[in-house]
Amino acid sequence: MLEKIGFDALIKNSLLEDMNNGDITTDNLIDEQSISTAEIMAKEKGIIAGLDIARQTFAFLDKNIQFTKLVEDGASVEKGDIIAIIKGKTKAILSGERTALNFMQRMSGISTSTFKYSNKIKQYNTRVVDTRKTTPSLRFIEKYAVRVGGGHNHRFNLSDAVMIKDNHIKAAGGISNAVNKIREVIPHTVKIEVEVESLEGLKEAIDSKADIIMLDNMSIETMREAVKINEGRAVLEASGNITLENLEAVAKTGVDVISVGALTHSVKSLDISLNIIE
Amino acid sequence: MLEKIGFDALIKNSLLEDMNNGDITTDNLIDEQSISTAEIMAKEKGIIAGLDIARQTFAFLDKNIQFTKLVEDGASVEKGDIIAIIKGKTKAILSGERTALNFMQRMSGISTSTFKYSNKIKQYNTRVVDTRKTTPSLRFIEKYAVRVGGGHNHRFNLSDAVMIKDNHIKAAGGISNAVNKIREVIPHTVKIEVEVESLEGLKEAIDSKADIIMLDNMSIETMREAVKINEGRAVLEASGNITLENLEAVAKTGVDVISVGALTHSVKSLDISLNIIE
Amino acid sequence: MLEKIGFDALIKNSLLEDMNNGDITTDNLIDEQSISTAEIMAKEKGIIAGLDIARQTFAFLDKNIQFTKLVEDGASVEKGDIIAIIKGKTKAILSGERTALNFMQRMSGISTSTFKYSNKIKQYNTRVVDTRKTTPSLRFIEKYAVRVGGGHNHRFNLSDAVMIKDNHIKAAGGISNAVNKIREVIPHTVKIEVEVESLEGLKEAIDSKADIIMLDNMSIETMREAVKINEGRAVLEASGNITLENLEAVAKTGVDVISVGALTHSVKSLDISLNIIE
Amino acid sequence: MLEKIGFDALIKNSLLEDMNNGDITTDNLIDEQSISTAEIMAKEKGIIAGLDIARQTFAFLDKNIQFTKLVEDGASVEKGDIIAIIKGKTKAILSGERTALNFMQRMSGISTSTFKYSNKIKQYNTRVVDTRKTTPSLRFIEKYAVRVGGGHNHRFNLSDAVMIKDNHIKAAGGISNAVNKIREVIPHTVKIEVEVESLEGLKEAIDSKADIIMLDNMSIETMREAVKINEGRAVLEASGNITLENLEAVAKTGVDVISVGALTHSVKSLDISLNIIE
Amino acid sequence: MLEKIGFDALIKNSLLEDMNNGDITTDNLIDEQSISTAEIMAKEKGIIAGLDIARQTFAFLDKNIQFTKLVEDGASVEKGDIIAIIKGKTKAILSGERTALNFMQRMSGISTSTFKYSNKIKQYNTRVVDTRKTTPSLRFIEKYAVRVGGGHNHRFNLSDAVMIKDNHIKAAGGISNAVNKIREVIPHTVKIEVEVESLEGLKEAIDSKADIIMLDNMSIETMREAVKINEGRAVLEASGNITLENLEAVAKTGVDVISVGALTHSVKSLDISLNIIE
Amino acid sequence: MLEKIGFDALIKNSLLEDMNNGDITTDNLIDEQSISTAEIMAKEKGIIAGLDIARQTFAFLDKNIQFTKLVEDGASVEKGDIIAIIKGKTKAILSGERTALNFMQRMSGISTSTFKYSNKIKQYNTRVVDTRKTTPSLRFIEKYAVRVGGGHNHRFNLSDAVMIKDNHIKAAGGISNAVNKIREVIPHTVKIEVEVESLEGLKEAIDSKADIIMLDNMSIETMREAVKINEGRAVLEASGNITLENLEAVAKTGVDVISVGALTHSVKSLDISLNIIE
Repeated sequence: MLEKIGFDALIKNSLLEDMNNGDITTDNLIDEQSISTAEIMAKEKGIIAGLDIARQTFAFLDKNIQFTKLVEDGASVEKGDIIAIIKGKTKAILSGERTALNFMQRMSGISTSTFKYSNKIKQYNTRVVDTRKTTPSLRFIEKYAVRVGGGHNHRFNLSDAVMIKDNHIKAAGGISNAVNKIREVIPHTVKIEVEVESLEGLKEAIDSKADIIMLDNMSIETMREAVKINEGRAVLEASGNITLENLEAVAKTGVDVISVGALTHSVKSLDISLNIIE
Repeated sequence: MLEKIGFDALIKNSLLEDMNNGDITTDNLIDEQSISTAEIMAKEKGIIAGLDIARQTFAFLDKNIQFTKLVEDGASVEKGDIIAIIKGKTKAILSGERTALNFMQRMSGISTSTFKYSNKIKQYNTRVVDTRKTTPSLRFIEKYAVRVGGGHNHRFNLSDAVMIKDNHIKAAGGISNAVNKIREVIPHTVKIEVEVESLEGLKEAIDSKADIIMLDNMSIETMREAVKINEGRAVLEASGNITLENLEAVAKTGVDVISVGALTHSVKSLDISLNIIE
Repeated sequence: MLEKIGFDALIKNSLLEDMNNGDITTDNLIDEQSISTAEIMAKEKGIIAGLDIARQTFAFLDKNIQFTKLVEDGASVEKGDIIAIIKGKTKAILSGERTALNFMQRMSGISTSTFKYSNKIKQYNTRVVDTRKTTPSLRFIEKYAVRVGGGHNHRFNLSDAVMIKDNHIKAAGGISNAVNKIREVIPHTVKIEVEVESLEGLKEAIDSKADIIMLDNMSIETMREAVKINEGRAVLEASGNITLENLEAVAKTGVDVISVGALTHSVKSLDISLNIIE
Repeated sequence: MLEKIGFDALIKNSLLEDMNNGDITTDNLIDEQSISTAEIMAKEKGIIAGLDIARQTFAFLDKNIQFTKLVEDGASVEKGDIIAIIKGKTKAILSGERTALNFMQRMSGISTSTFKYSNKIKQYNTRVVDTRKTTPSLRFIEKYAVRVGGGHNHRFNLSDAVMIKDNHIKAAGGISNAVNKIREVIPHTVKIEVEVESLEGLKEAIDSKADIIMLDNMSIETMREAVKINEGRAVLEASGNITLENLEAVAKTGVDVISVGALTHSVKSLDISLNIIE
Repeated sequence: MLEKIGFDALIKNSLLEDMNNGDITTDNLIDEQSISTAEIMAKEKGIIAGLDIARQTFAFLDKNIQFTKLVEDGASVEKGDIIAIIKGKTKAILSGERTALNFMQRMSGISTSTFKYSNKIKQYNTRVVDTRKTTPSLRFIEKYAVRVGGGHNHRFNLSDAVMIKDNHIKAAGGISNAVNKIREVIPHTVKIEVEVESLEGLKEAIDSKADIIMLDNMSIETMREAVKINEGRAVLEASGNITLENLEAVAKTGVDVISVGALTHSVKSLDISLNIIE
Repeated sequence: MLEKIGFDALIKNSLLEDMNNGDITTDNLIDEQSISTAEIMAKEKGIIAGLDIARQTFAFLDKNIQFTKLVEDGASVEKGDIIAIIKGKTKAILSGERTALNFMQRMSGISTSTFKYSNKIKQYNTRVVDTRKTTPSLRFIEKYAVRVGGGHNHRFNLSDAVMIKDNHIKAAGGISNAVNKIREVIPHTVKIEVEVESLEGLKEAIDSKADIIMLDNMSIETMREAVKINEGRAVLEASGNITLENLEAVAKTGVDVISVGALTHSVKSLDISLNIIE
């Protein structure tokens, strides 16, 4: 279930963006009292996400609108499948159509793409996770869509987990110093991840008891070695240049997590349409 | 130049989304007074867009930051080209990096992709235009990126031009009725576009003096016929199933405008990185 | 029907402006449970506008309030006519009265005044239109009130139509240059209006195929000449020093549109009162 | 000096209302770097108000703009007088012109009109005050303009002074009961005003030690009597059907305050223009 | 009854502060459809305040929640007393618990503490009032809690009553000058309070007809003298170093009002808990 | 350093709360151009927090104000110590005084109180941490003040760490089930805390590899046993009925963390004043 206090503002702003002074066509041609029924249909195969946000979009324009989901988020649909039936004011349906579909198409595009990744390595004990390479202001719904597609989330943002990178390490004078310094001050509820580029870095990070270690752009060979060295102590995360093609090879190395920026930074919308049927 | 009253809110919300309670790593490891210089570099070939919004993002975190553009929006860059140099608080650079890049990568992805379309038919007197299939809350900057890539914009939203579609025509009792009814009430400053699916519809729309006529999903052959019938009266817009492959064939029919939803609904981010150099 | 996403904010802010810390009198003297019926009455003859916004104002204070319109926006009322009946919490009625009436009185004042203009030239094929001289933050409802009074709207704002004025012409090096330069870059869905002060300017604007030409402060005689020269090519708009007295003379010249700043910049509120009847 | 935390939001919203997607004409025809000088000129005689808000409007569009006031708010100007000189980006001047003038013209209209009232009775010890019949969301600046014109303000809103009207009196069971009940609970820093329609009501209100008594729609004769009965105990406020014509007669009765709704509910904008001079 | 337009924003922001990305525990462990009943219980003796704001908090998370008050704000409860019963979505109850209690515990803490003061001098004709030493952004609900506890409010803020302090007196050249100067310009609906530190100041303030005079840090003896000098003309307010211990002695001097900053600036939350009972 | 995107809104709202229509006293008595110097002084011994937010508050009212810190946040001050010197517009100093002090007094109150706890067990390897029992909308600055006082923070909110309580355990069918179920779905960057009331619960939580285990209201004796059983595997957190008196005894048991709700839910403001010195 997709829920968040604060969604109202996002949806309202998006509607205002599309109709700051109303829908000049519909407002003038469609009768205020006219009621229609419409269906939302998949125009191509994929994994659906975003039904709740579509419903809320129409509800802003007609609070009595009936939005009947025929499938739930996460459903796999084929071309031609009906996803939901909407009944309410014709004006609300026509004016809200584009905004609602813009949300759903993007979210379903992410779910569909994520599913290809997660499905490919489902027999491994390895997670496909997203990154912070999300669309500004839409991170919450994009990360939701990743979960709908069978992926997992990395940290939500800069506030909720420590990620020590190259520049932090330099500033602190080495991995151990950085990890120890920050462990002193952060809440005991927060995990520490360290990004390493070599097996030396890996060893230092393991010794400093980092919770998670990101293996940055390592070869398959090096990652396999890293897993051996780690002996299950830290969570190991592979990152950098992951594609659908090399995904399984990476998973086979035994890393726990594989992060894929493309899940959210390069999205092909799923083709979904809305048709008034009566 | 990308400018908009109201951008501040979008950028602030995006920063808050990424650091609602600060950057727990950087805040604790990087000295408040530390100053660094960083460069923004293209990691692949493309058309750059979004430099101003990147600058503003860093400026929110350090109002004295120096952001020196080495190229302007619209520049064609190669892998390895330096796009901008940033000098200011190390904390601001590290904490703002992801948000700034998220804006720039998406915008540059749109510009780069649009350029492929616009460049392909540059010898024709035909525009490539975007649609309203944009990311909720980012329409202004996405449509800007389309222009940077050599494309043109379609109407911004439901308020600023009339677009009479199938359901409006049915409700009004025919194309002529719809056009005449709406012309009576809208401002004299607003254009009327009608969507038609056949040459009969086209003729009726021309007779009703629609300013623009959208040829919806017509074959190349039919569009050629439509151009002949129109005799330069209405602006003709081709729409539906346009790809890079068939783009030139459509332009050759003589239509004035070709609208391509993919410009904004399916975006592959351009790979851009930020590196601290001293 | 007056509707806009975003109205909630305007109404809430207006209520907060009037009762940032509540209604100190009503909150302390009127019982929370007390229910009353009130009527909204015209205290002078005029055209009513703003019933929906009045209803929404009271609904913020008592979501179960019953607001029964006895007339619709656009109705012509006489002194003493009852416009609407309200039944709900006495506190909501008393505390919301001033804000609701402030909206209605101004909107009805605009409708009433506009009607005097539009009615005077109803036998001509000429529109009376408003301008952008509206009250900051209330443009949408003021332009709505103009329509209710039988007027039409000019462009809503600087974003939705081109208006080339003297300074733009100077900067671009002449009317033709300005029109051609801007036509190259704007969406094909946007009209171009040019402001001219002489018949020479008019001719150049016609030749450059401007959609609309504003005749700025021309004499009746010159406007008549302009209509002749134009031969129905551009839409001609008369502007400057239009009064109820000279309105018909201007319409007789054959111009298509007459813009009147006073419709919104000088408003005499219609006298409307609210009385608790039981 | 006109100042308020929170003005930024009002001005920004007003600019956004006028250019939600920029100024399509100016953005495309005027060079980003172009600098101009403009003057703000009175086109008719009146009292100026709103210079600070005009300055802030332009400053949002060009933070380095130079805005030189030649007169201060409250100055009496004649037709042709230059009020201020603006130097800065041509784009900022052209795009901000209408919003800045919309504020100034309305505010100066209020000041000019108020001055006619306040000046007429300046030899009496009687104040002309405004009411809560202000434009929703603009009350603060409208009440400011009343002060600039030599008027005084009535209570700002429902929170800051008690005003006991007919319905409150009925609910509380008489004037004394109402005054006593509310005095028990309100802060000792708040004044109590009672609205009376007869001399009996007046006496009861005086006996209950109301701070201010509004004489609602009383005849000149009755008000003269009321002043006599009052013997300087409560502040007496005349209200209802006050016009420029009968204003002096009302003042002569000896009332302390005369409230005039028309000061803000019926505003004729002062004609002010902006011209680029180089 | 606690009511304010604008509360929605405060409650929403507070919920967002606690769950910007949802309740990661509850969202993943509790079934969406699960319904529970919970009780809110006093864990110590005190005066309850804030039931409405607690109800609204839960209602944001489940608009169909049933919130049954067993007592009203102002009730005196003992340890173990049940204050309210909540029935609705388990998720809403668990996720909203902390925010709702944070409001109620603080407000009840203020009411409980205020009651100790107000009750101690209930036989005197003297009010205990709060100050502006409130928590930023929570003043309205804190001042409400003071009233619930039997206290009264001082002015709400800097806008609604005049308070002339030392620096104002110096700037104006004496008490009389200050009072007279300000009386000339402020609305006739606003009271004037003057802060004095000596009996000389008191006399000057009385002579200038100040409405309220604050006796700043005076000894019991001096205050008794002040009451004598005043002869009931101004309202006298004792301020500075008031404690539960010396409160009655101050009241005995005959002052009208005693202001106590500690009512809101030093709050011990009342212990209140929420328990799911089925 | 206290920093957060979004602080501007909090400070502005707080200023607006105190002066929605300006400071009626200062605006009318203090000259716009008047400049003063003021000092902020400790009126009692304590730990200072909130200097940056005080500075920002004054800067909103006079952007050129000079705010010179004589000590930094975290400094221990004695009665009479000067904390900061402010030089700028007299109006800004007088109008901003209360809001700035309201922030500083509360924050310094929290720091001062926290220091008493943290200092008491400084020789133990045990942290004093806060809870989510903070003032709605002020959590960020309250948790900052805890850190300034030598305490540590618990999780910021419901989004950033898992806390499995009684009701979650019941819903999931036991501790192991709950921990395993949630570990499957949450990001690998998030820690899991489990609340247990008995040593049996403790053992199950340890076995399920919970990261943190909260010992809820256990006796000193039981906690000592828990530390022994745990053998350093999970982080152990003592919670419930912690006071300054029993704090050291709890620390001696060997638990890692002690959470104290009172740090933020019951705050005694530190007495701090502002005096204009010239």
